[in-house]
Amino acid sequence: MNHTFPLYLHYRQRLAKSDLFKTLSIDTLDDMLKNFRFETWKKGSQHDSKLALQRFYVIVEGRMELIRINPETGKAFTLMILKEGDVYDVLSLLDSREHDVIPVALDDLKLLSAPMSRVRDWVHKHPEFNQNMMPYLSQCIRVREEIATDLALHDTPTRLARVILRYIPVDSSQHQADEIKAELLHDLSNEQLAQLVGSVRQVVNSHLGKMKKEGLIHMDHHQIVVDDLQRLRIKAEAIHGLLQ
Amino acid sequence: MNHTFPLYLHYRQRLAKSDLFKTLSIDTLDDMLKNFRFETWKKGSQHDSKLALQRFYVIVEGRMELIRINPETGKAFTLMILKEGDVYDVLSLLDSREHDVIPVALDDLKLLSAPMSRVRDWVHKHPEFNQNMMPYLSQCIRVREEIATDLALHDTPTRLARVILRYIPVDSSQHQADEIKAELLHDLSNEQLAQLVGSVRQVVNSHLGKMKKEGLIHMDHHQIVVDDLQRLRIKAEAIHGLLQ
Repeated sequence: MNHTFPLYLHYRQRLAKSDLFKTLSIDTLDDMLKNFRFETWKKGSQHDSKLALQRFYVIVEGRMELIRINPETGKAFTLMILKEGDVYDVLSLLDSREHDVIPVALDDLKLLSAPMSRVRDWVHKHPEFNQNMMPYLSQCIRVREEIATDLALHDTPTRLARVILRYIPVDSSQHQADEIKAELLHDLSNEQLAQLVGSVRQVVNSHLGKMKKEGLIHMDHHQIVVDDLQRLRIKAEAIHGLLQ
Repeated sequence: MNHTFPLYLHYRQRLAKSDLFKTLSIDTLDDMLKNFRFETWKKGSQHDSKLALQRFYVIVEGRMELIRINPETGKAFTLMILKEGDVYDVLSLLDSREHDVIPVALDDLKLLSAPMSRVRDWVHKHPEFNQNMMPYLSQCIRVREEIATDLALHDTPTRLARVILRYIPVDSSQHQADEIKAELLHDLSNEQLAQLVGSVRQVVNSHLGKMKKEGLIHMDHHQIVVDDLQRLRIKAEAIHGLLQ
């Protein structure tokens, strides 16, 4: 990306706010940006996981779903939703192997992508970049472990509550806001929610209905709004600190 | 650990074979070993996860289970079994936060432990150590993702087959050996196997029985022996390369 690119400063700023690229100097960012190119992925488009063997993507706007599919049954499971500042794919970056996960654009996605080999060089060349990797990778491990544990130890209504909690802004638990929006889940169909919970649409449908009746949540413009965080946390069995 | 310690050379050799410490020079290993102390954990003993905030453990002999428990129901889930060369706890190393998992000694465990802060210094001080971290962390992410996906997309008999495949030696799939032992699962009760599969003892019991009748496995000295790897892989739906 050339510094004459129309939104150059805007995207540099976005990059500077992302977990992996924060704390890097402006000079380093400018140097890195030369290797990035701007891409858009159309809402709903699915991409080939082999892409990530060649290029490394930083999300600068929109959401990306990572989906796994059982080829025997066609059943889908949404591992997670990546948001602005997240990267795809950190696994292929680390070990140069394909990561068997399908990236899907949940919105019109804006991305910066750079050659994978170049990003690998940066890990060695820039200690700050390497240092940013550690807590980011730790978070990658923790999230997957939480998802596995949820599936092994909790029933569907509990998992649904936990998924909603996972996707509300992190500072919501500190501030006792009146309305907490699960922004990252906006516009998802119940089918998509079910794929995140590891269940089926009909079951998620019914549990969402119950949670609305109980006054825990309501819907506003295709978005889940949490009305009673404390009781939602009790439903999620998150009162023992299982979720932060 | 002082170099006059009786088995000093033996443990240095074990350390040198572990994923994180391989490729380090003998001098570096000797320097590191000064900070390690030798510990044993008695078979069956459970330890406090807060331990890992202070000290970093390398397994030099035996197996360690990592268990999560649902405090509401008491239900347990075994996230994984760590073996010789694995470390506990890589998460606390990365982000200095507690990792909500209970370490249990499956055998009389032999460990080397060093102060966590010292190991964190090594990541910055020794590029080879830092470089070893990347594929190790990648593997940590992949394993947890496989476990989550198995739970979301596969039924219990399929998951049982996948767990057995996960714990047989990596090179077994290359060599068409007559007998492949799931060594890492030796002496586990069906209750413990069920905790690994995310199921209950009675169900695992019945599926193990079916797999024996079908000629896929048999038991030998409390150890699962695979008789037909190809058919076990088909049962595990691993024929599409979901497992390596």
